[in-house]
Amino acid sequence: MNSDMLTRITRYYRALNRLRSIGLEKVFAHNLADAAGVNAVIVRKDFSLLGIHGQKRGGYDILPLVNKLAEILGKGDAQNVIIVGCGRIGKALMNYSGFEPDGIRIVAGFDTDPLVYSDASNPIPLYPMSRLEEVIEALEVKIAILTVPENAAADCFQKLIDANIQGVLNFSPVTLKSQNVDGVLRPIVHNINIALELEQIFYEIQYPKKVKDNN
Amino acid sequence: MNSDMLTRITRYYRALNRLRSIGLEKVFAHNLADAAGVNAVIVRKDFSLLGIHGQKRGGYDILPLVNKLAEILGKGDAQNVIIVGCGRIGKALMNYSGFEPDGIRIVAGFDTDPLVYSDASNPIPLYPMSRLEEVIEALEVKIAILTVPENAAADCFQKLIDANIQGVLNFSPVTLKSQNVDGVLRPIVHNINIALELEQIFYEIQYPKKVKDNN
Repeated sequence: MNSDMLTRITRYYRALNRLRSIGLEKVFAHNLADAAGVNAVIVRKDFSLLGIHGQKRGGYDILPLVNKLAEILGKGDAQNVIIVGCGRIGKALMNYSGFEPDGIRIVAGFDTDPLVYSDASNPIPLYPMSRLEEVIEALEVKIAILTVPENAAADCFQKLIDANIQGVLNFSPVTLKSQNVDGVLRPIVHNINIALELEQIFYEIQYPKKVKDNN
Repeated sequence: MNSDMLTRITRYYRALNRLRSIGLEKVFAHNLADAAGVNAVIVRKDFSLLGIHGQKRGGYDILPLVNKLAEILGKGDAQNVIIVGCGRIGKALMNYSGFEPDGIRIVAGFDTDPLVYSDASNPIPLYPMSRLEEVIEALEVKIAILTVPENAAADCFQKLIDANIQGVLNFSPVTLKSQNVDGVLRPIVHNINIALELEQIFYEIQYPKKVKDNN
């Protein structure tokens, strides 16, 4: 599955969980298309590729569809995530309510500053960086969100690799890269660079692309 | 220019500004490749496509290169941005120091809650949503960062369109879409969905892709 299709599948999955939580039992390709920002033809094509077939004119039953997508996405129990760097963005993510419906749980935060990690009132346990490896192992954590300043990013990334982390969502402005380990990229890294996104939007405003249709 | 190349160009531009700020005058394709997470062959190819040529074995002079890329990226004066939704993530972005080096300036925040927007101690002026159009016009704002809860996203997006905003960086979990206005997408929308990124990383960990080299 390519990354565009994966993006769509995760969006369908999120939308389905929300529709189910408000009591719906059936869904149509058009509903999912709206939620995922594509058109209904693409939804039907994706499902067909995955061997999922709807009822004639009847749409799809939500429950088996959710279960099938969960299986494809490798979802089971809650997925434990840690946050490295407990500044404003790290703290904001710790308190973000949008992870729960997707089974994502922030289980610990790490910082180098004793004034930060000794704050016992924080809703999520905080630890010094020196306990990274121990906590990752004990809580079976696979993914870290990196929200440290630019000058600490490379060093923290190396510490995460040494602690055997398998995925990193990087919010620091440094572009971090996976290593090729026996033909497989380790760890999986997604870089989110907010300033870069804004610059690209400025560029696209200045040089608008001509398009044919809305999708 | 396609979006991958645009990403690289903005990364080169950022890296060059940082190198210049520490006193460097020359840069080599390899330096920029490291900063952008690609290899040097791609850097040289990008520059060649843009009509930028280095000196034989001498690399590139940073200053003219920065100016050329600034011209391509449409940069001039500071680029004014507003934040709609002053919760934890909105507030964290208001205090984020990573925008300044790129000439991005957060000039105002908006919220519907009087307890939030009447906080005079905030470093950036806060306004009620009802003043959106007026402030956008007065401060010549082109881009808004949307950090509202899921259930407010669609409504705020429509208000931004009505207030003539040209670009939106959306952090809410709802996927927002541009409209096709006479063959051009308006406004430009980039959706950053943090839960979705985490889910994709979980997926990629479970089903690792085979790769040939590091780039």
